[in-house]
Amino acid sequence: MIESKSEIRVRYAETDMMRVVYHGSYLPWLEVARTDMFRNSGLSYRKLEDSGFSLPVLSIAVKYLRPAVYDDVIEISVCLKERPRLRIKLEYELTRGDELIATASTEHTFIDKSGHPTRPPHDFTELMAKHFGG
Amino acid sequence: MIESKSEIRVRYAETDMMRVVYHGSYLPWLEVARTDMFRNSGLSYRKLEDSGFSLPVLSIAVKYLRPAVYDDVIEISVCLKERPRLRIKLEYELTRGDELIATASTEHTFIDKSGHPTRPPHDFTELMAKHFGG
Amino acid sequence: MIESKSEIRVRYAETDMMRVVYHGSYLPWLEVARTDMFRNSGLSYRKLEDSGFSLPVLSIAVKYLRPAVYDDVIEISVCLKERPRLRIKLEYELTRGDELIATASTEHTFIDKSGHPTRPPHDFTELMAKHFGG
Amino acid sequence: MIESKSEIRVRYAETDMMRVVYHGSYLPWLEVARTDMFRNSGLSYRKLEDSGFSLPVLSIAVKYLRPAVYDDVIEISVCLKERPRLRIKLEYELTRGDELIATASTEHTFIDKSGHPTRPPHDFTELMAKHFGG
Repeated sequence: MIESKSEIRVRYAETDMMRVVYHGSYLPWLEVARTDMFRNSGLSYRKLEDSGFSLPVLSIAVKYLRPAVYDDVIEISVCLKERPRLRIKLEYELTRGDELIATASTEHTFIDKSGHPTRPPHDFTELMAKHFGG
Repeated sequence: MIESKSEIRVRYAETDMMRVVYHGSYLPWLEVARTDMFRNSGLSYRKLEDSGFSLPVLSIAVKYLRPAVYDDVIEISVCLKERPRLRIKLEYELTRGDELIATASTEHTFIDKSGHPTRPPHDFTELMAKHFGG
Repeated sequence: MIESKSEIRVRYAETDMMRVVYHGSYLPWLEVARTDMFRNSGLSYRKLEDSGFSLPVLSIAVKYLRPAVYDDVIEISVCLKERPRLRIKLEYELTRGDELIATASTEHTFIDKSGHPTRPPHDFTELMAKHFGG
Repeated sequence: MIESKSEIRVRYAETDMMRVVYHGSYLPWLEVARTDMFRNSGLSYRKLEDSGFSLPVLSIAVKYLRPAVYDDVIEISVCLKERPRLRIKLEYELTRGDELIATASTEHTFIDKSGHPTRPPHDFTELMAKHFGG
């Protein structure tokens, strides 16, 4: 299992006229958490893209439990629970202090520069071996 | 069943460095489709909010099947299949010409100005009666 | 002079907790107007990028005169007043019915795939000759 | 003079298909810098809005000098140089390491809940007196 925690502060731009955070604004936060998870594991997603790989989002699901508001500090936990096969499935919990405000999941797969599914880059495979066994 | 179709053209702002549409950019499109569905049914979501009701998003799920790119014309079909009880569940299909590029679903419930769940406004209840029977 | 008019309807996503349109949401609208101006002149900005050119924004200025709100229909007029030399300067007026709600200007220059300034593509030079004389 | 520095890391969502940061993505960063400037001065913009004041953007101008890319760490300096009269004018410099990548300015004025221009809240007037003399 790989786990990581990130923190963001809600920007004014992320709110809508319901006076809470726009539901779509959570998606960039999940992405911040994913990038941090890679970085904390010694893998730079930026370098990974520079070397010709991308990890697009195949599916996304979010449950909104309580509204977040402007200037809130939100902690996003992301977790890779199982060794990925074709799809990399990530699970997220968003909390404000002790309150769980949302849960989410995303699925990803590696593609190459031409946009075709491809085997994961070597660094990623090594990271999986390290965490989930050879 | 209530159905509606909307069309959008992909904006440059909606793309990301993978050279396709950013996955989060689909959420505003779903919302355009919802607003149009209400409008086409004779209900203005704007007036509905002016009269003190809101219809926040409780959950969202999107499956991305094929990438959309800048300047694409995308058709979004939205459908309310069942008479809503506590939750209003909407289903979406996004197509480019004959190609299905994504599917999605959202759940909503009416809240009042204080943010508490509330019974739907009269106009909405009437619309449901008209489509799903008294 | 080249002129073009576009129309957008304000999306919920484009509002913020001040209950009006977020000031940053105007920038994608200007871009919609630019793309339409090119299209109406027989030039596809998408094809232009496909052929290796880009037209990044060098500067932007917006004056907000009256707030726009959700579901408003906004007309964006864009105008290229002078034959561009090194920089292409565009001017914009945003109106809601008879009301002028914002004015803006942007400056652009052509760059090639490596990111360096370059001479405009042939189609663009021809368009300029057609409008501003040989 | 009041000065403040903030730091952001570029999110994937903030890029576009030109493979650099979308020009509109800078506006939320300026706002992060403004909010931090207030916070660092002992003023919470969130509380200010809770007490019935808002500080909308009247105008914005940005000059883009060098592209920012995904995962860059950008420092945003914001500065209030002169005691504000009717308009509060803020100036910004965005740097990546030693490189100046953009400059910007915004103008603001206080409005009340009904959207009309109003005198600044007491805390703000005190802050100005402290920095620019009684």
